[in-house]
Order: sequence, then structure tokens, then C-alpha cells
Amino acid sequence: MGDISNNNVVLLGSGFSMFGMRARIALEEKEIKYEYKEEDLINKSSLLLEMNPVQKKIPVLIHNGKPICESLIIVEYIDMVWNNNNNNAPMLLPFDPYDKAQARFWADFVDQKVYHFSRRIWTNSKGDEQELAKKGFIESLKQLEEFLGDKPYFGGEQFGFVDVALIPFYCWFYTYEMFGNFKLETFCPNIISWANRCMKRKSVSITLADGKEVYESVLDYKNKFLMD
Amino acid sequence: MGDISNNNVVLLGSGFSMFGMRARIALEEKEIKYEYKEEDLINKSSLLLEMNPVQKKIPVLIHNGKPICESLIIVEYIDMVWNNNNNNAPMLLPFDPYDKAQARFWADFVDQKVYHFSRRIWTNSKGDEQELAKKGFIESLKQLEEFLGDKPYFGGEQFGFVDVALIPFYCWFYTYEMFGNFKLETFCPNIISWANRCMKRKSVSITLADGKEVYESVLDYKNKFLMD
Repeated sequence: MGDISNNNVVLLGSGFSMFGMRARIALEEKEIKYEYKEEDLINKSSLLLEMNPVQKKIPVLIHNGKPICESLIIVEYIDMVWNNNNNNAPMLLPFDPYDKAQARFWADFVDQKVYHFSRRIWTNSKGDEQELAKKGFIESLKQLEEFLGDKPYFGGEQFGFVDVALIPFYCWFYTYEMFGNFKLETFCPNIISWANRCMKRKSVSITLADGKEVYESVLDYKNKFLMD
Repeated sequence: MGDISNNNVVLLGSGFSMFGMRARIALEEKEIKYEYKEEDLINKSSLLLEMNPVQKKIPVLIHNGKPICESLIIVEYIDMVWNNNNNNAPMLLPFDPYDKAQARFWADFVDQKVYHFSRRIWTNSKGDEQELAKKGFIESLKQLEEFLGDKPYFGGEQFGFVDVALIPFYCWFYTYEMFGNFKLETFCPNIISWANRCMKRKSVSITLADGKEVYESVLDYKNKFLMD
């Protein structure tokens, strides 16, 4: 892609959003210099509304003035554009079309299942609905654990696309456990080992929030909006 | 990819599923020989359960015995693998990373918005909920119309990824109009012109079902399951 060192890269993110974290981890993995702009989602900036007029959501990556939206699309974009940088950062997506399709399938699974259920553990924090959410969440992590198998990362020997997609949820685990009154390690010990392995990477450790801070912030949010 | 003419390609699809149709259109565009197997979603085949044990959904593309799941992932896979076939079928996704990200964004928009709202027009076919679904559906098509602009296809001069993602909904338009009591052409005339243009392609015309047959089948389904 020629000299990309002078490229201007801005990321619009917000608080403890796991979707914003995905983009940050990918940027850090590739050692790309970028400016991070925190968005207040209650009062969205004119920049956000201009850059993502359709979905009006974060994260948005602004590369030389052009916006890229949706976290997994951003991660793929970063992987395509910075595919051969100075630091020889490895590719996040595999080269082989079948392996690539598999990685996309499991990243999509994280959005469709893990996110869907995990959110409902704390938004519907009572009774049967919460039980269903907890069950669905644990089940989806067990399915991911099966796909992980004995590999150190979902990407195999290398940290890759599915790892980027899932690891931001790790700093929300404490929140799910507190609301749902369970310990994930009991059900998915290998997911916890995998997460600890990922936390040793600088890209992950500097991006992920503290689990207790996430929990405090969720409690604040629920009080403010009188949920449940 | 070497000689792929001897490859074994099977597609598991079902009835009037727009997701199954996406895969068929992509296969037809690339002039790939394949075997189509109709699935009964009430009694799923052991092949489907074996090939997609995680989501248990159609479509599934089985390429030389290996399954690829999720319609947009299948279309991308087909585009990657049959990227230079005998017939010089054009690529469905653009080469440029930014254009590719844009195409993925709008295809994802079709899943998140168009599908979400369109389904609710006939599943909640009364009162306020239906009004909201109708409004959301029309609004999402208007946003797509704006993105289409003066181009003949979403892919520009060439029929591409977003065209494949959206066109199967065209054979459901009659159903949405009948349940919602409205005419789409009043709101989105350019989407209708675009759809008529797509219908001139063999890949689309041989894949899409008849609008009235889709409607009859939806009425049958609702009667059978006592919905509304």
C-alpha cells in the first residue's frame, strides 16, 4: 500500500463498548498511530453524525477523512490496508478462503449469540428471562470453547480475527457474573485460560477496561435510567 | 485456484428463503455447477445438522465436503474461490479495501434493517407494531436508494455484493405490500427500477420465486401456526 506512515487515522469510540475495543486492539496489533476520540452517546458529536449518518453508532474509523463503520468491518479493513507494515504485524484473518470463512462465521457468532445473551443478563436481571440469557451465554461460550480446542488462540498459533472479536467481552465477565450470580470458570475453564493468555498481549491489556469499573458503570447506568 | 471444474458443490436451501437465494444467485453469476438440496426446516435433515451443528440453519454451501455457513459469508467465499473462472465472471466484491468495506457495510445493513423490519410487517400484522415495521422498512429502503444514487447497480456499473444481498427481498415485496397495505413504488421508485434491471439477469430471474406464490405460502404458514 506504499507509505502509509503519514496516514491520518482517527477512531470514534465510547466508554466500555466492546465494539470500540475491537477496533483499538486491531490498531494496536498493527502498531498504527491513531487519535482516539471519546463519544458521548447521549449527546452524539456532529462528527459522529456526519461520519456514520446511517447507523449513528460507534466505532467509526476515519482514515484520511473517509469513514469505515461496524466493528468487524473495521477490523477487516485495518487488516487489508496495513497488511505489510514496518513491524511485520501478522495478518489477523487467514489467507485461505475456507479458513477465512470459518473465522468470519465465528466472529459473526460472537455478535449473534454471545452479545445477544450477555446483554440480557444485566438488562433483564430478574427471573426466567435472566435464566434464559445466562443459559444462552454459557452455551455460546462452550461452543466457542469447543472450536478453540487445544489451540492457544482462535487464530491457531497466532492471535487473530476471532480473538479480536471475543476478547473485549472478557472485561464484562465480572458484570455478567455479578448480575447472574455464577462463575464462568466453572463452565468454561479453557475460555478463561485463553483470555488470560490474550491479556499478556500489549494490544489487549492496554485496551481492556477493569472488570470492576465496567460493573460500577453498569450499576450507575441502570440507576440513571431506572431499569428493572 | 487451479482446476476447479471437478469440484463438488452442494447447496442446502429452503423454500422462499432470501438467504438461500443469495447463495444461488452467486453460484449462477459464477456459472458454477452445483446440486441443490431442499431442506424441510420442520424436519431438518441429518446432513444439515451435521454440516451446520452450531446454527442449524440454511443456507449451507458444501464444497468438496466442507461446509460454509451464513449467506453473506458464503457469497464472499464463492467470490474468493471462483475468482478467475473460465467465463471470466466479474468479482462481486470490489478490490479496493475502502469500497469493499462500504459493500460489506450495506450488505450488513440489509440484514440488520431491511430483514428486521420486513419480517415484522407480516409476523405482527396488526396495529402500531406493524406501522413501526412498515415505517422502518420503507425508511431503510430509502437509505439504500440514496446509496444507489444514479448507478445502475449497487456495485456501480457491475452487479455486485450488495445487489446479491438485497435482490432476493424483491420477490417478497408483494407480501409486504399486501400485509401492510401500501405500494413500495410510491416511496422508492428507484429501488423498483433497480429490481427490474436485476430481473433481466439470468442468475436472478431463475432464482427468484413468484411474488404471489411467496404470499400464498406465507398465508398458509400463518394459518398453520395460528399466528396473529
